[in-house]
Amino acid sequence: MRESPPLTLTFLGTGTSIGVPSVGCDCPVCRSNDPINQRFRSSIWLRSGGLSWVVDTGPDFRSQCLRAGIRHLDAALFTHAHTDHVMGFDDLRRFTLGAGASLPVHATAATLDFLHRAFAFAFDGEHRYPGYFKPDPRPVIGSFLLGDFLVTPIPVIHGRVETIGYLFSRDDRKLLAYIPDAKVVPEESLALLSGVEVLVLDALRPREHPTHLSISEAVEIVAAVAPRQAWLTHFSCEMDFREVGPALPMGVQLAHDGLELEIGSEE
Amino acid sequence: MRESPPLTLTFLGTGTSIGVPSVGCDCPVCRSNDPINQRFRSSIWLRSGGLSWVVDTGPDFRSQCLRAGIRHLDAALFTHAHTDHVMGFDDLRRFTLGAGASLPVHATAATLDFLHRAFAFAFDGEHRYPGYFKPDPRPVIGSFLLGDFLVTPIPVIHGRVETIGYLFSRDDRKLLAYIPDAKVVPEESLALLSGVEVLVLDALRPREHPTHLSISEAVEIVAAVAPRQAWLTHFSCEMDFREVGPALPMGVQLAHDGLELEIGSEE
Repeated sequence: MRESPPLTLTFLGTGTSIGVPSVGCDCPVCRSNDPINQRFRSSIWLRSGGLSWVVDTGPDFRSQCLRAGIRHLDAALFTHAHTDHVMGFDDLRRFTLGAGASLPVHATAATLDFLHRAFAFAFDGEHRYPGYFKPDPRPVIGSFLLGDFLVTPIPVIHGRVETIGYLFSRDDRKLLAYIPDAKVVPEESLALLSGVEVLVLDALRPREHPTHLSISEAVEIVAAVAPRQAWLTHFSCEMDFREVGPALPMGVQLAHDGLELEIGSEE
Repeated sequence: MRESPPLTLTFLGTGTSIGVPSVGCDCPVCRSNDPINQRFRSSIWLRSGGLSWVVDTGPDFRSQCLRAGIRHLDAALFTHAHTDHVMGFDDLRRFTLGAGASLPVHATAATLDFLHRAFAFAFDGEHRYPGYFKPDPRPVIGSFLLGDFLVTPIPVIHGRVETIGYLFSRDDRKLLAYIPDAKVVPEESLALLSGVEVLVLDALRPREHPTHLSISEAVEIVAAVAPRQAWLTHFSCEMDFREVGPALPMGVQLAHDGLELEIGSEE
């Protein structure tokens, strides 16, 4: 039996909408200059067996590509249409430069509608200039394939905007779930996550927030799902990595920009 | 007679839509690591007598604020609705944090329409969360005042999108004109620019381009306007600062990220 290549995850960003440091903020984390506390807007880069995908392209996306050295993409996935997850969409243009090239863009119909409104020139089919981004919209209506992976949308509740996470499975192993923005993970979604090996989950800050999980709320969901590893992400500047990290329960860790995980290589 | 404070201009970015380095580009400029050739998307920060304004907020806007140390803004102006000039709009939220605070946003009706479509949550009047950006839209239909300055829109032709530059005058001195995106500057606009002291003008690259001025086209406009100083901006990676700069005519210079000019302090 052929050995499957690992799934490599790079955290391109682990910050909330305003990033960390936040403009004009004088809190100790924003003023610290500690690289572990510096966060671009949340996004991940996934690679396996020569294929390469991103989930979400916030306004920092160009800087994130340069920092991580992303040279090629086979698809872009979106969790929802909030600005911190979509406003770098046009910087995907560098991945459709070749003649006839286009990039599959997987998102819910609501998110695709938003992208269509905000980036109409990319969707109008004219592509007047060769440098224009040429998306190939793929409405997410259920599970779909990316290479060897079955990708399953995980509906979550995050304020008023329709939001999904993504579960990546291969050979009946649920390898990774990525849920950067959520306040509630409904029962049906918890069932989909059952047995996942690596869970990446929103945990905005220690205090409660109306549309994001706090640390303790996220830790409760981790306990319910019981993955092998849990990584928290999408942090405000109220999250001091060096203070909060050591206080987390066993098996729950804080992600940081640039962190790379290798998933599914072991038996 | 009271002495007027100078107008300070900081170039927050001098790059075109894809920035420099450009993602996935192997040209010598993109690979050079020379800071003088590294360009965020084009934007300027203006200050005078305690007031502070920006023109355009592309996707790099948060990083630009942090780099320049922008702590306060009194208005944001927009030249047009292309993604490289507007996608950082939501990062203006940090400048309307106080109770009842809002930020005047000056733009043409067409550009405001676009901002409304792409950032509807900011304009819907609800501002459900205190951190939301609260713009105060000011349609540009003619000259308007910013502090002591009379600001005059300068219509230019830049592909299909309605685009303006801005002329900043005070006490009958035309101190500064900023036109980051143009292919043609019509006769009427040249007349408005006549006598301007500092002209900042689009010059994408040496080669011609369908919607941007090339270096030689920009130099022709500079010659027609005959400002005291001319600065070129909005460069692609085909513009090598150290190669192109020395070859320009007297009085025409290349801007670069971080460059600061003090305008109108001398008699």
